[in-house]
Amino acid sequence: MSLSKNQLKLITSLHQKKYRTVHNLFIAEGTKVVNEFLNSNFELEQLFCIDISNYKDVEKVTQISEGELKKISSLKKPNNVLGLFKIPLGDSFKNKGLILGLDEINDPGNLGVIIRLCDWFGVAQLICSLKTVDCYNSKVVQASMGSLTRVSIIYTNLELYLGNANLPKYASLMEGENVYKSIFPKNAILVMGNEANGISDSVLKHLTKSITIPRFGKLQQTESLNVATATAILLSEFKR
Amino acid sequence: MSLSKNQLKLITSLHQKKYRTVHNLFIAEGTKVVNEFLNSNFELEQLFCIDISNYKDVEKVTQISEGELKKISSLKKPNNVLGLFKIPLGDSFKNKGLILGLDEINDPGNLGVIIRLCDWFGVAQLICSLKTVDCYNSKVVQASMGSLTRVSIIYTNLELYLGNANLPKYASLMEGENVYKSIFPKNAILVMGNEANGISDSVLKHLTKSITIPRFGKLQQTESLNVATATAILLSEFKR
Repeated sequence: MSLSKNQLKLITSLHQKKYRTVHNLFIAEGTKVVNEFLNSNFELEQLFCIDISNYKDVEKVTQISEGELKKISSLKKPNNVLGLFKIPLGDSFKNKGLILGLDEINDPGNLGVIIRLCDWFGVAQLICSLKTVDCYNSKVVQASMGSLTRVSIIYTNLELYLGNANLPKYASLMEGENVYKSIFPKNAILVMGNEANGISDSVLKHLTKSITIPRFGKLQQTESLNVATATAILLSEFKR
Repeated sequence: MSLSKNQLKLITSLHQKKYRTVHNLFIAEGTKVVNEFLNSNFELEQLFCIDISNYKDVEKVTQISEGELKKISSLKKPNNVLGLFKIPLGDSFKNKGLILGLDEINDPGNLGVIIRLCDWFGVAQLICSLKTVDCYNSKVVQASMGSLTRVSIIYTNLELYLGNANLPKYASLMEGENVYKSIFPKNAILVMGNEANGISDSVLKHLTKSITIPRFGKLQQTESLNVATATAILLSEFKR
């Protein structure tokens, strides 16, 4: 068996969100990430790999050449295997524990790191605004390193969601209560804003509290922390 | 004026560390980052820019075309200006406050984020092992967003440095004391390890304490946090 023209076309198309939606499929690459999806509740559509010896128990495997993997891979150093998995049906909303809301995170690397952090800190639910980058974007899948299999993610109208939510709602802002002096409830929503513009006004008006990570450096620059590192520190503070 | 062949050759060569050392120069790009270096103690060698109206007070400006900037830029979207700056002479070692040691950090993006974090948290000194990626690598310069102008960085033999240092020395490890239950001294050294292999044995033997960020997620995977996000959380814990 080798790669057919139709398969090549399908895989290439999945780099665009509209085709991921049409086919209900996404791409995961590399032994580590693919194995995490194989060992999860995600359903495999098809595996393409060079050395199939480790995938003898998997039914849907197509053996391909190194050149073919290079054609379909978006990694700099393609790593043996590329898998197509089905996009699962959405989970039901969880309304207990710590819930993280993202208001238009654009960078796939940032979203990937944030999903990894949600996994590490046991965030019950990740709520993404509709303009947040798609979590099945292949760069997000690779950056989250399998954490997608363990984190519950819902894309929805963030304003509506927050309007209906009956929990303390925290905004991460440049000016707010010192996070080190705050006492956090177990059940709460924390919202992080867009990389360039922060939290939009229409989302902010639903939030009840604002927190900030104080700067210790000598100069008070306007500079802010990257949203992924700020999320790391805030989740750590909520959970410690 | 426009770009000469020699200038093009010089700028291109500066993407390699050996030529940065030969010429004692590095590249900074984009209005924001270039302005931070212009407003710092760093010495400008030459500025290349399309619209020079904002740089009328700067002596060493060469006006170039959009096409020329594209040729010398390594940004996806070149942003008006590229500057060559002189690599400063090394600082003297600081031995008070919080000192961060890096044992062979390879990824320029990670080092850039860590330099930004040192700036934010007022880390007195960043000590990089000789195998750590060069902080004047253009990807590091861009990722650190001007924080290079405010953080004191020294590349040295980390083992020797630690052997001579008379301060509590902390290792960030997967298994160690719970960071949330630790009380940290004001003056200390914290060491972070390589992305894939962690802290090397030859460095580890000089460290007196080990700390870890506990995992809150359901499953105890072997997965670790990215070194930049782990650094964010640990610096936050040292400084809070």
